[in-house]
Amino acid sequence: MAEPPAAASSAGDAGQAEPPSKNALKKAQKEKEKAEKKAAAKARELAERQKKEAADAEDVSKDSYGELPLTGSKDFKPTNTPRVDLSTIADNEDKEITFRCWVENARSQSAKLAFVNLRQGLNTVQAVVAASEKLSKQMVKFCGTVSTESTLVVTGLVKRVKEPIKSATIKDFEIHILKLFIEVKAEVPLPLQVEDAERPLPDTGLGDEDEKVIEGDARPLVGLNTRLNNRTLDLRAKVNHAIFVIKSGVCGLFQEFLSKQGFTLVQTPKILGAASEGGANVFELKYFDRLAYLAQSPQFYKQMLIASRFQRVMEIGPVFRAENSNTARHLTEFTGLDLEMEFQEHYHEVMGVLEDLMLFIFKELNTRYKKETDLVRSAYHVEEFKLPESGKVPRIPFQEGIKMLREAGEELNDYDDLSTPQEKHLGRLVLSKYGSDFYTLDQFPLAIRPAYTMPSPHNALLSNSYDMFMRGQEICSGAQRIHDAELLASQMRKHDPPIDPNGAGTKDYVDSFRYGCPPHAGGGFGLERIVQFWLGLPNIRMCSLFPRDPQRVTP
Amino acid sequence: MAEPPAAASSAGDAGQAEPPSKNALKKAQKEKEKAEKKAAAKARELAERQKKEAADAEDVSKDSYGELPLTGSKDFKPTNTPRVDLSTIADNEDKEITFRCWVENARSQSAKLAFVNLRQGLNTVQAVVAASEKLSKQMVKFCGTVSTESTLVVTGLVKRVKEPIKSATIKDFEIHILKLFIEVKAEVPLPLQVEDAERPLPDTGLGDEDEKVIEGDARPLVGLNTRLNNRTLDLRAKVNHAIFVIKSGVCGLFQEFLSKQGFTLVQTPKILGAASEGGANVFELKYFDRLAYLAQSPQFYKQMLIASRFQRVMEIGPVFRAENSNTARHLTEFTGLDLEMEFQEHYHEVMGVLEDLMLFIFKELNTRYKKETDLVRSAYHVEEFKLPESGKVPRIPFQEGIKMLREAGEELNDYDDLSTPQEKHLGRLVLSKYGSDFYTLDQFPLAIRPAYTMPSPHNALLSNSYDMFMRGQEICSGAQRIHDAELLASQMRKHDPPIDPNGAGTKDYVDSFRYGCPPHAGGGFGLERIVQFWLGLPNIRMCSLFPRDPQRVTP
Repeated sequence: MAEPPAAASSAGDAGQAEPPSKNALKKAQKEKEKAEKKAAAKARELAERQKKEAADAEDVSKDSYGELPLTGSKDFKPTNTPRVDLSTIADNEDKEITFRCWVENARSQSAKLAFVNLRQGLNTVQAVVAASEKLSKQMVKFCGTVSTESTLVVTGLVKRVKEPIKSATIKDFEIHILKLFIEVKAEVPLPLQVEDAERPLPDTGLGDEDEKVIEGDARPLVGLNTRLNNRTLDLRAKVNHAIFVIKSGVCGLFQEFLSKQGFTLVQTPKILGAASEGGANVFELKYFDRLAYLAQSPQFYKQMLIASRFQRVMEIGPVFRAENSNTARHLTEFTGLDLEMEFQEHYHEVMGVLEDLMLFIFKELNTRYKKETDLVRSAYHVEEFKLPESGKVPRIPFQEGIKMLREAGEELNDYDDLSTPQEKHLGRLVLSKYGSDFYTLDQFPLAIRPAYTMPSPHNALLSNSYDMFMRGQEICSGAQRIHDAELLASQMRKHDPPIDPNGAGTKDYVDSFRYGCPPHAGGGFGLERIVQFWLGLPNIRMCSLFPRDPQRVTP
Repeated sequence: MAEPPAAASSAGDAGQAEPPSKNALKKAQKEKEKAEKKAAAKARELAERQKKEAADAEDVSKDSYGELPLTGSKDFKPTNTPRVDLSTIADNEDKEITFRCWVENARSQSAKLAFVNLRQGLNTVQAVVAASEKLSKQMVKFCGTVSTESTLVVTGLVKRVKEPIKSATIKDFEIHILKLFIEVKAEVPLPLQVEDAERPLPDTGLGDEDEKVIEGDARPLVGLNTRLNNRTLDLRAKVNHAIFVIKSGVCGLFQEFLSKQGFTLVQTPKILGAASEGGANVFELKYFDRLAYLAQSPQFYKQMLIASRFQRVMEIGPVFRAENSNTARHLTEFTGLDLEMEFQEHYHEVMGVLEDLMLFIFKELNTRYKKETDLVRSAYHVEEFKLPESGKVPRIPFQEGIKMLREAGEELNDYDDLSTPQEKHLGRLVLSKYGSDFYTLDQFPLAIRPAYTMPSPHNALLSNSYDMFMRGQEICSGAQRIHDAELLASQMRKHDPPIDPNGAGTKDYVDSFRYGCPPHAGGGFGLERIVQFWLGLPNIRMCSLFPRDPQRVTP
């Protein structure tokens, strides 16, 4: 260790008889002052330490609160304290429970009393911490100032309250905090308040008008773009959790119903060697030393599986559309719920399966996911989804739909496609006539359907195809497909624009019908649309965890 | 109608007294011959029609066979004849049933007797048609020559047989054909015989050695490339149907087990604005006027959902890897079974869920999918998949695995990654020591794991990470992830190669841990690998309906 130079110059010279110089005296004075200061500092430090030790000694709760070290799975000595799910709180009245939760907000009422609103899943509960002989003011202070969104491990007594608690989903019980540890501390400030994400969007458009203040409302309504830019916080809102629990539920119900009907779940390729279906709206990809394309739908492949005699197939997978559509109901990447099946005599057999499938999903959403449905619909002030009392889904021929619209004042020709406003208008007409928010349009004009659609045997300008609607908006498109290679090739050539049946993206598909493929039909649902229209949400982006549109590929 | 000029010149001139010229005589002669020929032709035609009518009159079966017109759903008059599933054949002994099926092969034994092997789903049945007073020879001939792979609608009597039928899966019954209609006729010749696709692959490589004849085997073994080039026919093989029924089953079981454990099924984006995880092995995409990338895994997003407090999420979706790996166990597009969950005290809680999940899947495959499993394993002569009798999955520390390999003669260092042959070797050692084809390696070296892996609290060179193996091959990689933004950023910077925590593909991810994310772990399974190793198949391409590798993007 190197000796400090200052000490060497003073102490080293001390043995000599010469009188100290002015400088030396000054120096000595300084040293003395320094030493005194040092001693004083030490004394202060000691006093503080003693004070802290005394305070700690006073703090009867010092082992009951604080920040936990990073959970690095150091020792696996399970505490064997069961971590309680707050949905079972009623079973724990007057019991001590331990649970992980996060902070909705914390506030000190006084030096002796603090409240912390806690959340776990879709449940929120009020917790209270009060100073007593057994619980220190220090702990009350700590609990009252814990930062919003921090993750906690809390131990407390479950106590019934006299007056229902308005601010929490758990209204009849509160937690009397015994221990509160911060497991992971949230930084401040938050870029988005979860509380704000709970509130409905300010408009039904793309949410460009961020931070709109609605009359009579003190808080700004945070717009969709701000929410999506901070999606990890936004998604914490109960309303968003509920949307994605429902979305997960729709997938499960889709598979549950169809599995029982003998459908095999399949995965068809998303990378294609050539663009099919004409090549428009397809994303292009660099695939090693060549080009490839992202699948716009599993259409060709699910039919090829019917040709492979799979009889009934279903798929849940991403669908990619390079459409530059910036609307409230388009995404460039969405989840397709697809199915395809052989039928025996008539494609209406398949329509029946599709209708029964959707009725099953609606029925089960209304029971198994009622809580989540009510939560979202109440936030967005949406009416219940009406289903026909007869249980029979209205199945309306396209030409009949045109007639209904004409009678209601719309101008359109027999074989015109419907515009989005006309579809919505028809939805209102069907609702008032049949009392159903869900219905099928059948026998669409051939010219506005894909080339593989089976022409109608009744009218050469129509086809054996159908769309399904919820609240006047399309959720499914389907048809009987041509299962004869020659007819398919000829329809492709006649199509506008023509498709080459021997093209790189079509030949394998057309050829797969040469070796005995049974008659078949199917359909493709947009999962996000089912969720959007079930809940009556203003924008499809709310139904995609991390939505993709022409402007957005992050986060 | 225009009068024929020849008739005009002869008949028109007949009233005049002039003698006929030589030319006119020749002409008249020709006319006469023409008229005679015409009359003869007419007589022949009549005779043929009469003969045909007589034959038709004789053909007592003329309404019981033939080709049906294209099923265009013309009239919906359901015949109300239930179409029978052949798996219920035993319930229909001595009854008349109608069913759709397809032709495995048809052969005439004599003018009075023909056999047709019929298939429906995984069942095959022998059908016989014999001439009698009520059944014509014409019908027998028709049935005996129907082209292989045509789709039929057959009506017949279910009859018990004395000797079990070897060539069919239904051994105790045959069908006595009463009616046989071709619904969709298969073209001849077939580019691939389904019979050949039933037989095992000639080698365990990429199948380049197409048409290999194995000693003592008269038929060539059709290689993988030929099979995949004609995949719609190839997939018709029972062995292939069974593989994909099992694959569908694994997906269902995965969701069934995890749903009950409170997991939410999610869909994370496959199109990313920036390449994450360093940017290697990522497919690049043209996204409107910018570049985008295909997701290599849902890793970042499933963790962001844990940060969004989803607690437990699972995903089944495509995973894209731009790896130029031409092996029997790599695909450029495969199906990921992913899950991520918060844990309370230790990441081994999550490992326990993963192990229980796989044990549940294996158990249910052995019961619910036993028939399909046996079918495939018997074709490929594969041993049963062994599970530990104790029900406890061997959980082996990586360092212990290294030790076992060293003791068995392998040369490797403490922190080396295992090569594929070493992994397989370890698999054999574990099988012989623990009696299990399924096990977990825990606490991998930190340096060979991704930057987001939580370091081990016991040894700075190790990490809280694990892989799971089936028959000595990796099916799952997982870990505790770092849930603290600062530690994560620092580990990214230290990583080889370093990752910028503020990069376009990483910032949102790192920031999502700033606002209170609970400790969490998870894993990603390769669905095709689970199926491949469960069945002991030589090539992963057999477990993808339309496999994608660096060489193949079609069909």
